[in-house]
Amino acid sequence: MTNIAICAPATPITREHQAALEALVAAEYPAHRVTFHDQCFERAGHFAGDDLRRLTALLECANDPAFDVVWFAKGGYGSNRIAEAAIAQMNRSARAKTYVGFSDAGYLLGALYRAGIGQSVHGHMPVSVRSDGGKEAIRRVLDWLQGDTSGVEPSLDGITPVAAFNLITLAMMTGSPLMPDLAGHVLMVEEVSEYMYSIDRLFFHLAGTLPRLKGLRLGFVTDVPENVFEFGQGEEDIARFWCDRAGIPYLGRALIGHTSANRVVPFGLASPPART
Amino acid sequence: MTNIAICAPATPITREHQAALEALVAAEYPAHRVTFHDQCFERAGHFAGDDLRRLTALLECANDPAFDVVWFAKGGYGSNRIAEAAIAQMNRSARAKTYVGFSDAGYLLGALYRAGIGQSVHGHMPVSVRSDGGKEAIRRVLDWLQGDTSGVEPSLDGITPVAAFNLITLAMMTGSPLMPDLAGHVLMVEEVSEYMYSIDRLFFHLAGTLPRLKGLRLGFVTDVPENVFEFGQGEEDIARFWCDRAGIPYLGRALIGHTSANRVVPFGLASPPART
Repeated sequence: MTNIAICAPATPITREHQAALEALVAAEYPAHRVTFHDQCFERAGHFAGDDLRRLTALLECANDPAFDVVWFAKGGYGSNRIAEAAIAQMNRSARAKTYVGFSDAGYLLGALYRAGIGQSVHGHMPVSVRSDGGKEAIRRVLDWLQGDTSGVEPSLDGITPVAAFNLITLAMMTGSPLMPDLAGHVLMVEEVSEYMYSIDRLFFHLAGTLPRLKGLRLGFVTDVPENVFEFGQGEEDIARFWCDRAGIPYLGRALIGHTSANRVVPFGLASPPART
Repeated sequence: MTNIAICAPATPITREHQAALEALVAAEYPAHRVTFHDQCFERAGHFAGDDLRRLTALLECANDPAFDVVWFAKGGYGSNRIAEAAIAQMNRSARAKTYVGFSDAGYLLGALYRAGIGQSVHGHMPVSVRSDGGKEAIRRVLDWLQGDTSGVEPSLDGITPVAAFNLITLAMMTGSPLMPDLAGHVLMVEEVSEYMYSIDRLFFHLAGTLPRLKGLRLGFVTDVPENVFEFGQGEEDIARFWCDRAGIPYLGRALIGHTSANRVVPFGLASPPART
C-alpha cells in the first residue's frame, strides 16, 4: 500500500476537494490511501494558515515514517516562505519519501532536490480533482505512484536528468538558498496568466542565470492576458530566441503546465516506485 | 547648455509627448536643449522598433560627443534585450554622460552602473509630460541637471551609496550579466500593478539574493490589483518581514515610484552637474 499524506504549504483547499479525491481513490486505487492534514482547510489571509502552521503541517507529513508520499494540495503562493525551515527540520523518514506537486510547490521540489531529500516529482495536485480533466491529470500521478509510467512526460529518456518548473517560480528561486544546480539538466518550464512581455522577461532572466542547461523544453503557456499591442512573438519564438542567445539547445515542447494535459516529471533520473 | 538626447530603448512615445516636453523646456529651461531621436516614435510589436533599431538609436545618442545626457523616453518593457550589446559598444563619449530613467530603464541604469559608464540616475521620463503631476516630476530631473538638488530623494546623505529600482526589473536582473554589485548600498525599490502576493514573492527573491545591502527603503507600491482574499499584510509589513529575515536594515520609506511624487536618485554617491 502507498500511504499518501496531503498538506497545503501555500493556499487552502476545501472539504469538497477532499471528498472528491477520497472517492476517486476508493473507486480506482485500492492500493493507495490518502490522508488530508487538517491544515489543508485553514486560512490566514492569503495562505492556508500562517507560516508556522503550514511549516508544522508539512513537517508532520514529511517526518512521519507511516507515510510514503507527501502530496501538495494546491499552489497559489506561499511555499517559498517555509521551504528553508522545512528542509532544515526534515528527518530520516523525510529522506525516504516522494514529494509531488507543481506551480508554487516548485519552491519545495527545488529545495528538496537541492538538498538531496527524497524524490521530487512534478505532478498535478488534489485541488484539480473536481473536473473531469483534472481527474485525468491526477490519475497520472496516482498511476505513477504504483509503478505505471504511462503518464510520464514523453520526452524523458532515462539518461538525461530533468526538472520541471513554473517560470516565475523558478525565476524567484534563482540565486536563493533554495535553488538546485540544474547544470546538465533538461529543464522544462510552463507558465499561466502572464503577459507575453512577462514571458519574454522571464526567459531573459533564465538565459542570463542558467546558461549551463543541457537543453530546454517549453511547456504550456496558458491564459495569456491580451495586451493593447500584440507582443509580436509567440511563446515558442521567445523560448527559441533566448535559448539561441544563451547557447542552450531548444528541444521543443513539453507536456507540462496548468492544463489537464499536465504530465508527470520525476526530477533527476527517477524511476517510479516498484509496483506493489 | 545641457544637451539632452532622448531615445526609447523599450516602448514608444508620440509626437504629442515631444511637443509637450519641448514646450516645457522652452518655457522654463533655457539652458537645456532636448533632441528626440526619431526612433522614439516607431513601433515593432510591443517595442519602439526592433532590437537592432533600438540599440542603434541608443548608441547614436550615447556615443555622440555633442550630447551631455541620454534620457530614456518611456519604460514598459524591452531595454533588457539590448542592454548587454549597448554596453559593449559604448565609446569614450558615452562614459562622460548622464543617463536618466526608471522602471524598465533600470536594466540600462543597472548595467551602466555595473560597467562604470557615465552616471546612472533614477528619474521621471518624458512620457509623463502630458499631466500636471508628470510635469512636476519631470521638472525635478531638469532641475537636477542644472545643479538644483531640491528634487533629490530626501534620505540621500552623500555618504552611503544608493541605487533605486523597480522590484520586478531588479529581480529579473539579479544573477544576469547586467547586475551591478549593490553590496554596501542603500537600495530603494518601488512597484506598480502587481498583486500583493507578487510583492511578497519579489521581496523573497531580493532577500535571498542581496543579503549584503547596507539597508533598504521602500518606495511607492501603486495600483495593486484586488485579490479574492486579502493578502493579510501591507507592503511595509512585507518589506520589514523579509529585511528582518535577511538581516538587512529596513530604513523606512523612499519617495520613488510610479507617481508624480517620484524623486531623483543619482546612483552611487553622485552630485548633480555643476550649475552652468
